[in-house]
Amino acid sequence: MPISLGELATQFGCELIGDPDLVVSKVASLPGAGPDALTFLSSSHFKPQLASTRAGAVILRRADAADSPVAALIHDSPYACYARMAAVVCPGPVQTPGIHASAVIDPTASVAASASIGPHVVIGERAAIGANVVVGPGSYVGPDCKIDDNSRLVANVTLARAVQMGKRCIIHPGAVLGADGFGNAMTPDGWLKVPQLGGVRIGDDVEIGANSTVDCGAIEDTVIEDGVRIDNLCMIGHNCHIGAHTAMAGMSGIAGSTTVGKRCMFAGMAGAVGHITICDDVIVAAKGMISKDITTPGTYASNFPAEPAKDWSRKVARVRRLDTLTERVRKLEQGD
Amino acid sequence: MPISLGELATQFGCELIGDPDLVVSKVASLPGAGPDALTFLSSSHFKPQLASTRAGAVILRRADAADSPVAALIHDSPYACYARMAAVVCPGPVQTPGIHASAVIDPTASVAASASIGPHVVIGERAAIGANVVVGPGSYVGPDCKIDDNSRLVANVTLARAVQMGKRCIIHPGAVLGADGFGNAMTPDGWLKVPQLGGVRIGDDVEIGANSTVDCGAIEDTVIEDGVRIDNLCMIGHNCHIGAHTAMAGMSGIAGSTTVGKRCMFAGMAGAVGHITICDDVIVAAKGMISKDITTPGTYASNFPAEPAKDWSRKVARVRRLDTLTERVRKLEQGD
Amino acid sequence: MPISLGELATQFGCELIGDPDLVVSKVASLPGAGPDALTFLSSSHFKPQLASTRAGAVILRRADAADSPVAALIHDSPYACYARMAAVVCPGPVQTPGIHASAVIDPTASVAASASIGPHVVIGERAAIGANVVVGPGSYVGPDCKIDDNSRLVANVTLARAVQMGKRCIIHPGAVLGADGFGNAMTPDGWLKVPQLGGVRIGDDVEIGANSTVDCGAIEDTVIEDGVRIDNLCMIGHNCHIGAHTAMAGMSGIAGSTTVGKRCMFAGMAGAVGHITICDDVIVAAKGMISKDITTPGTYASNFPAEPAKDWSRKVARVRRLDTLTERVRKLEQGD
Repeated sequence: MPISLGELATQFGCELIGDPDLVVSKVASLPGAGPDALTFLSSSHFKPQLASTRAGAVILRRADAADSPVAALIHDSPYACYARMAAVVCPGPVQTPGIHASAVIDPTASVAASASIGPHVVIGERAAIGANVVVGPGSYVGPDCKIDDNSRLVANVTLARAVQMGKRCIIHPGAVLGADGFGNAMTPDGWLKVPQLGGVRIGDDVEIGANSTVDCGAIEDTVIEDGVRIDNLCMIGHNCHIGAHTAMAGMSGIAGSTTVGKRCMFAGMAGAVGHITICDDVIVAAKGMISKDITTPGTYASNFPAEPAKDWSRKVARVRRLDTLTERVRKLEQGD
Repeated sequence: MPISLGELATQFGCELIGDPDLVVSKVASLPGAGPDALTFLSSSHFKPQLASTRAGAVILRRADAADSPVAALIHDSPYACYARMAAVVCPGPVQTPGIHASAVIDPTASVAASASIGPHVVIGERAAIGANVVVGPGSYVGPDCKIDDNSRLVANVTLARAVQMGKRCIIHPGAVLGADGFGNAMTPDGWLKVPQLGGVRIGDDVEIGANSTVDCGAIEDTVIEDGVRIDNLCMIGHNCHIGAHTAMAGMSGIAGSTTVGKRCMFAGMAGAVGHITICDDVIVAAKGMISKDITTPGTYASNFPAEPAKDWSRKVARVRRLDTLTERVRKLEQGD
Repeated sequence: MPISLGELATQFGCELIGDPDLVVSKVASLPGAGPDALTFLSSSHFKPQLASTRAGAVILRRADAADSPVAALIHDSPYACYARMAAVVCPGPVQTPGIHASAVIDPTASVAASASIGPHVVIGERAAIGANVVVGPGSYVGPDCKIDDNSRLVANVTLARAVQMGKRCIIHPGAVLGADGFGNAMTPDGWLKVPQLGGVRIGDDVEIGANSTVDCGAIEDTVIEDGVRIDNLCMIGHNCHIGAHTAMAGMSGIAGSTTVGKRCMFAGMAGAVGHITICDDVIVAAKGMISKDITTPGTYASNFPAEPAKDWSRKVARVRRLDTLTERVRKLEQGD
């Protein structure tokens, strides 16, 4: 949506250095932007791209403003400011309220008049769909699920059973919430399925990525608090409790019955074993594995960065011989 | 379903200490249970919660019975006993036989009269759906798939092609069985797809988690034996053979053409490379990677637990300097 | 499709030693093949199986031909030759052009007359479906997606938005292309979603496995070049650029804004962090993690193979004591 720099500055509390009547109608990267585009500089890493940008305007910190060859929108948090402005310049599609003729809605379900139910959606017994909710094509909302106002299931999302979702959540395609947790009791005849009878409770403003899974609890609910961000292909096991504003990058996972604090960050392919408690403000590096309670905020790691395979093989061999090396040192110490 | 303690004790072979006429109608955790709830104590970890429980009855071992403040159902395997009782107290939904009007069934497919075919299901050529099978909403059962009696595809499950499934299996949403294996031949022009012509054979009582994948074989079938339990986001590559009652926790994976024995357990994010054989009764710790044949039962591991990143970095550096350290020890030994 | 050895030899440029009129009608493994089956020997690993094969014919290298007890089709690249012949002997299903009555096609979308649109498919605004494209059952093709000629979405595939796909691609069930990238700006009120406005561009002859995800770019497009092969449960983050003919095995992933060169290979569960550049012809071993730019082709690794847990625990402890060991060596050197 075309908008003038003056309007943007006013609406988002920026100081504008430049022509308030200049209109931008798209967003772009620093090097890719033309005169009709808004861009931003938030990391010094990209500072070298500033001098040659042809953007209509750049959102940046005051300290960088003098170096901008084009109009500058000054803000303390250029990236967050860009996020807000981009949502105005490039608004998402408007969903038309109503239920598509091909959707199948159980008679015991309730759907708000302002909700948009897409083609081939199925909504099960006693489900409740709030105001302005979008249930995208092919999604399944199972029995006893409740979706609060302004949330969106993008497409082909599955809410298997007993999922309660807050307001303004976004669930991406292929995500599965409320499937049975992995509960099995060993018997002389093999594994016996333990009924998974809890549900999933999801707070407000939660986003869950494509093909991620959040299992329902065994007895009590699995809980995801407000503002949690979960990337693609992540797994939250049954009876986990994920604290507010925690972020989990792609392919990370939390095993069952583990509690994760607020504002934690799991990098890609990181994980935590089950039945532990991780305090607030813990960061786990890529591929790291938390194996016991964490009580001190900070960054935790346990990965080795890849190196040429030949070098790495020698290190593996050295680690394998640490017993021997230690023994050799002991002998030297004893003067053997 | 409300049921008296006397009936439960009789049906499941427990000794009851308490009022046989007391009725429970739900299950709960030890601390969460009220007088109408059944609960259990299977691990000494939770023993401290026993004294204050307000449950109607607790399933527990004889040794713990005297400490129960409420009625006790005594069983040698309280967790398995709970699993069986919970399935009676809280039975799953009853599926109505029949084919939903929106389902699309190929004329060459066969569907048992007692099967339940949900909305927006598609069943392909020559597929066969057995008695009491449930094919949940949005699922696709491709050509030449056969699902034996009492199995259930929960919702949005895909059986791509040539999947033969035994009795009483449960396949959770988003799982994909029978997709092409990853077979590519390198040519001067790039990768050439190798047709994947085998199928998938799944035994009885198998459960496969949400968004997991089991590929069809290249020529012969991928095989999953009876009683295997696979959690969410797991991958079984083409031509794998997974032995009976093996369990794979979330995000674990087995690369192509690997044989896994019976009663193995893979913890979360664990894996095995392709073309190897793992014997019966092998346990792989979280994030462990099996890279060669295993011929001795037992537990295998290869992960480092995460620690504060600063400490970890120093360890990585120390491992990097092991060559140097070893050389220093050698010089000391030689009296240099 | 039954075909004579003479026809196969002519069509694929093999020398035939044996009866040109012998007809094969299926493919099989060396030990599993009967007289009506074609098989192949490409790895010396399987050479011991050659002497006893009962196949109609074996595709193999000249050096192995004399050892074949049956007809031999001689080719320098037996595996690639097998791949081509198997596609002739066992052709895939022929798709009937046309749009299934249950499919929902937006009036602004275009669908080639030769395309096959399956049951319960949804095609969104301004989408364009090329000649001979197959959109399998339950798939969703979102707004502004374009699928070029002869590509195939097998079933239950999601193209969320703005995905441009080349010719002859195959996308397996549950794959999600074009979902929002993981872009979040931290604010005092928690995470703020950064609109993901780029798309996904996929070249020709790309194959993407079941339940894998490729996110759309934040501003510019995520790019997958020609001939890339991606296995199941892989993740390609936003703004990645994957070079031609790169192959990624199951459960591998590339974090956002990383560039991967041509002809790279990622083994299972391998990964790369974001914002780095990996040159052409890099191989990453299973579970390896690339954490910085790679500028030299070759194989990279960072995993420890699993070993018995007791042995492994001692190694972990030894690594933990490396500081101490190093200090002990220092003291010895100083003659303390």
